[in-house]
Amino acid sequence: MKIGFIGLGNMGGPMALNLLKAGHEVSVFDLVPALVQKLTEAGAKAFASPADLAAQEIDVLVTMLPASAHVRSVYLGEQGILSTVKPEVLLVDSSTIDPQTARDVSAAAAKQGNLMVDAPVSGGTGGAQAGTLTFMVGGTEAAYERAKSVLQNMGKNIVYCGGTGNGQVAKIANNMLLGISMVGAAEAMNLGVSLGMDAKILAGIINTSSGRCWSTEVNNPYPGVVETAPASRDYVGGFGTDLMLKDLGLATEAAKSVKAPVTMGATAQQLYQTFSNLGYGGLDFSAIIKMLSKQ
Amino acid sequence: MKIGFIGLGNMGGPMALNLLKAGHEVSVFDLVPALVQKLTEAGAKAFASPADLAAQEIDVLVTMLPASAHVRSVYLGEQGILSTVKPEVLLVDSSTIDPQTARDVSAAAAKQGNLMVDAPVSGGTGGAQAGTLTFMVGGTEAAYERAKSVLQNMGKNIVYCGGTGNGQVAKIANNMLLGISMVGAAEAMNLGVSLGMDAKILAGIINTSSGRCWSTEVNNPYPGVVETAPASRDYVGGFGTDLMLKDLGLATEAAKSVKAPVTMGATAQQLYQTFSNLGYGGLDFSAIIKMLSKQ
Amino acid sequence: MKIGFIGLGNMGGPMALNLLKAGHEVSVFDLVPALVQKLTEAGAKAFASPADLAAQEIDVLVTMLPASAHVRSVYLGEQGILSTVKPEVLLVDSSTIDPQTARDVSAAAAKQGNLMVDAPVSGGTGGAQAGTLTFMVGGTEAAYERAKSVLQNMGKNIVYCGGTGNGQVAKIANNMLLGISMVGAAEAMNLGVSLGMDAKILAGIINTSSGRCWSTEVNNPYPGVVETAPASRDYVGGFGTDLMLKDLGLATEAAKSVKAPVTMGATAQQLYQTFSNLGYGGLDFSAIIKMLSKQ
Amino acid sequence: MKIGFIGLGNMGGPMALNLLKAGHEVSVFDLVPALVQKLTEAGAKAFASPADLAAQEIDVLVTMLPASAHVRSVYLGEQGILSTVKPEVLLVDSSTIDPQTARDVSAAAAKQGNLMVDAPVSGGTGGAQAGTLTFMVGGTEAAYERAKSVLQNMGKNIVYCGGTGNGQVAKIANNMLLGISMVGAAEAMNLGVSLGMDAKILAGIINTSSGRCWSTEVNNPYPGVVETAPASRDYVGGFGTDLMLKDLGLATEAAKSVKAPVTMGATAQQLYQTFSNLGYGGLDFSAIIKMLSKQ
Repeated sequence: MKIGFIGLGNMGGPMALNLLKAGHEVSVFDLVPALVQKLTEAGAKAFASPADLAAQEIDVLVTMLPASAHVRSVYLGEQGILSTVKPEVLLVDSSTIDPQTARDVSAAAAKQGNLMVDAPVSGGTGGAQAGTLTFMVGGTEAAYERAKSVLQNMGKNIVYCGGTGNGQVAKIANNMLLGISMVGAAEAMNLGVSLGMDAKILAGIINTSSGRCWSTEVNNPYPGVVETAPASRDYVGGFGTDLMLKDLGLATEAAKSVKAPVTMGATAQQLYQTFSNLGYGGLDFSAIIKMLSKQ
Repeated sequence: MKIGFIGLGNMGGPMALNLLKAGHEVSVFDLVPALVQKLTEAGAKAFASPADLAAQEIDVLVTMLPASAHVRSVYLGEQGILSTVKPEVLLVDSSTIDPQTARDVSAAAAKQGNLMVDAPVSGGTGGAQAGTLTFMVGGTEAAYERAKSVLQNMGKNIVYCGGTGNGQVAKIANNMLLGISMVGAAEAMNLGVSLGMDAKILAGIINTSSGRCWSTEVNNPYPGVVETAPASRDYVGGFGTDLMLKDLGLATEAAKSVKAPVTMGATAQQLYQTFSNLGYGGLDFSAIIKMLSKQ
Repeated sequence: MKIGFIGLGNMGGPMALNLLKAGHEVSVFDLVPALVQKLTEAGAKAFASPADLAAQEIDVLVTMLPASAHVRSVYLGEQGILSTVKPEVLLVDSSTIDPQTARDVSAAAAKQGNLMVDAPVSGGTGGAQAGTLTFMVGGTEAAYERAKSVLQNMGKNIVYCGGTGNGQVAKIANNMLLGISMVGAAEAMNLGVSLGMDAKILAGIINTSSGRCWSTEVNNPYPGVVETAPASRDYVGGFGTDLMLKDLGLATEAAKSVKAPVTMGATAQQLYQTFSNLGYGGLDFSAIIKMLSKQ
Repeated sequence: MKIGFIGLGNMGGPMALNLLKAGHEVSVFDLVPALVQKLTEAGAKAFASPADLAAQEIDVLVTMLPASAHVRSVYLGEQGILSTVKPEVLLVDSSTIDPQTARDVSAAAAKQGNLMVDAPVSGGTGGAQAGTLTFMVGGTEAAYERAKSVLQNMGKNIVYCGGTGNGQVAKIANNMLLGISMVGAAEAMNLGVSLGMDAKILAGIINTSSGRCWSTEVNNPYPGVVETAPASRDYVGGFGTDLMLKDLGLATEAAKSVKAPVTMGATAQQLYQTFSNLGYGGLDFSAIIKMLSKQ
């Protein structure tokens, strides 16, 4: 297939490389020349703007951008995708943004005949490189079916979430709960150890009881409990606190728009913000347990 | 074996019955005659006070009481167990109380030569009747080994948590995290549905992602998602909001004693209190999702 | 003076009337004909669009709009103010919006030579009618000086807050603290009364101690403590819970943009959202105390 | 008058000295000899135990102790006050403790004929030395009237709060609101300054608006805003974070006992605990603003 790819950062770069590896013809655009160069060296063709790239003969166009404002401008701006793209091109936005923007841009695309899905990912830069990302896909079933075969070159789980925007909804709902569970896990582990329990024994009990969650089983915040977790390597790598903050910001903002109370989600957001300001924004979000101990 | 049992309420009653069924000789005490009668009809002998019962020839003495104050008075009071019990009797307290009281009473027992374990349970009245409770046991390994064979007549998982009081620590740490995860699950499910997702699809995605926890997989608070969950039968049965409140109260109080911050735990406690005051204290704690929806 | 006024709702309508009463020549625009009619009956001239109105010979143009999106479109849209307004016209936006939008619009105005101030108000519809509003003004000192004489026809306190956008900053910072203090006052009053104190005696002590705040002295949430407070008339009138919610939404959003933790502000926002969803969004925000009592 | 005084620490010591200065005959007890010596050098007589002291011919007996457990043991213990005190002696407990303990001890005193008031103070060590404390007094009106004349030698405001325990209720309700307001003030000041406002201008606006409170007017947490506030001398002196923590602990515990939700109070408690663990427990509680800034 002929695939366009816009946004070649930490996530988008390796994703586009995986498309090349899978044998697709890939055209790319990014504002940063060095990022573009990496891809052209691997065999991609570069174009001068989103509009230039979108004007080519392509089957699918994938975008991977930092935030809602970029998505709006790359799709709807004067030099944007929708100004030149042909109606048969399938549009796939893998950025993590608010559901409303996803829905607005999809509606604009639909108006001129383009199918579009929102397909945010989880799995981090490691998953992007290994091609093991999870994609949460929102859009019509027809669009999902077309997107699936492309996404499978970049990820392992391609999950259909229902109508347009629901990929974003699934991602922020899941990550808000993740953010909450992690602070909860940190508080529970710190409490138990402070009261005299061995951390591994406590984790073992929780993981066979009703408190168990991904944050205690896989990414336990207490050092030494799970060998493969960031907690056991000084919280380096993993899912950065500042990335969790971004997702919690999207979640609480979306919650406001539909008047859904998220007291725990909002509290978690503020605690991660406090922690980030202490200088730890680059550590895995499980490092929040550091803020609970006596210093 | 000859076993004494004090506290024959919703939990203690069926637990004592299971000891009788297992062929033990059981002696009982409770302040409420009707509760005592149920057990004597099933073959137990009744005694007039904890001290009277503790003075008998018994191997093990189990207590199941509502709160710390009762445990203190039943063990340490003038007519209490320690005033008459023989040094070879193993003491097992299955009440859910604060770790400090558990440690104080155990220390008093040790002084006069009695082994004692704290062994709070999870599994609810259903588990008590079916003999499928989980016991979280704190005490010396020797005491744990002796207690195990008796507890196995009343439960399925007998988990060793380390030294005295650690059974209580494990229980409150686990249940605090459970209480937090449930509010988080309720917020995430309500947010996703409010933003347009199907509840079952959302739960499916969370349960295969990093947001997964017991509160989304087994006891999902959204009606209709998990057929066997209280949410699918108007939140009747299950683990009552007011019982969760009791455990969160123990957790935040214990946290204060060791200066362990529990911002999410304390927030969850206050939200359940608010919900209980709205008149819902008797419903399963997953009903907290009702407080999030527009009415 | 010749003054234009756009946005004639509950606040803008009476404000424009006060300008007429003060003898100014007033030109108006609103999308709702009935609101326009009230003003034309009182002597104002009506125009067909913001651009039409802005094209007139006027000295000052005041806007009073519901939210940031309206301000952007009324100033920057195709039929917007900046498309026709003459450079000598002073622009005054009294809407309550986020500081960034205020700064963006002011910058656009400055580019074409117009002085502009942001001048959000406090004092409610009562203050708008009585001409006793407080204006918090952000902009250059020169712009503030010019705005002052006009604002004095609609308000009593005209407070200079520093550079552009600072009127909005002052308003959301103050109102966030107000929203927090009110929940705090409600919790403290409810706690004290639940523990056996007389509400008036408790309020008296707090008001002469370190807990005193506007929410205990002037707008005490406990019924019967302050005769003139909404609490003493079933929470009718006053500052609606949903308006407080709007301001807290602006505050937490602005906080996110500058990475300022606002744990208490965010918690208050979620509690008011929960309370609003229970059906009380139209009551004075002090009614939040109703959510604390046993029902 | 002949007055007994038990508990001669940072608060009790200077209070007892003020009674001596006022010409009373003062008998004292404390476990720490050095503290006793200070008072005997100033003219007091020392006794070997609370019971010994209480057995003397005295009119009034004042206690100033660290926590509920000490009050229980000093009054109700084997060598306690009630074991020897004569029925005509007025008992005054100035410790800050939970209302229930205050009521229990008063009831025990009443049983043997002693009038007793709870009379916790505010005003800190400075107020204790200067004799300008505020006393919040709970008890019968008769007991209050008798206590008043003695308390006036140690304080400036003697406030009657109603029945037994209400002195404690007033203190914890006020201080919980104070703790909440202070975090709110810190968040609002930090937010405003982060968004570009001058701290003094912002404080000035808040202090003439609905956000005003003791924490913005008198003890503003932003350095340099109020010259006499701890914030303007690196948060040294004032009311220590750990003392605020103690009072918030009493407040949330008392709230639990009467099922009064205190979401903001509990959140504030946890934030101060987090801040204290960062190593700042000895600074004035307004220093909590340090936890909000980027570092």
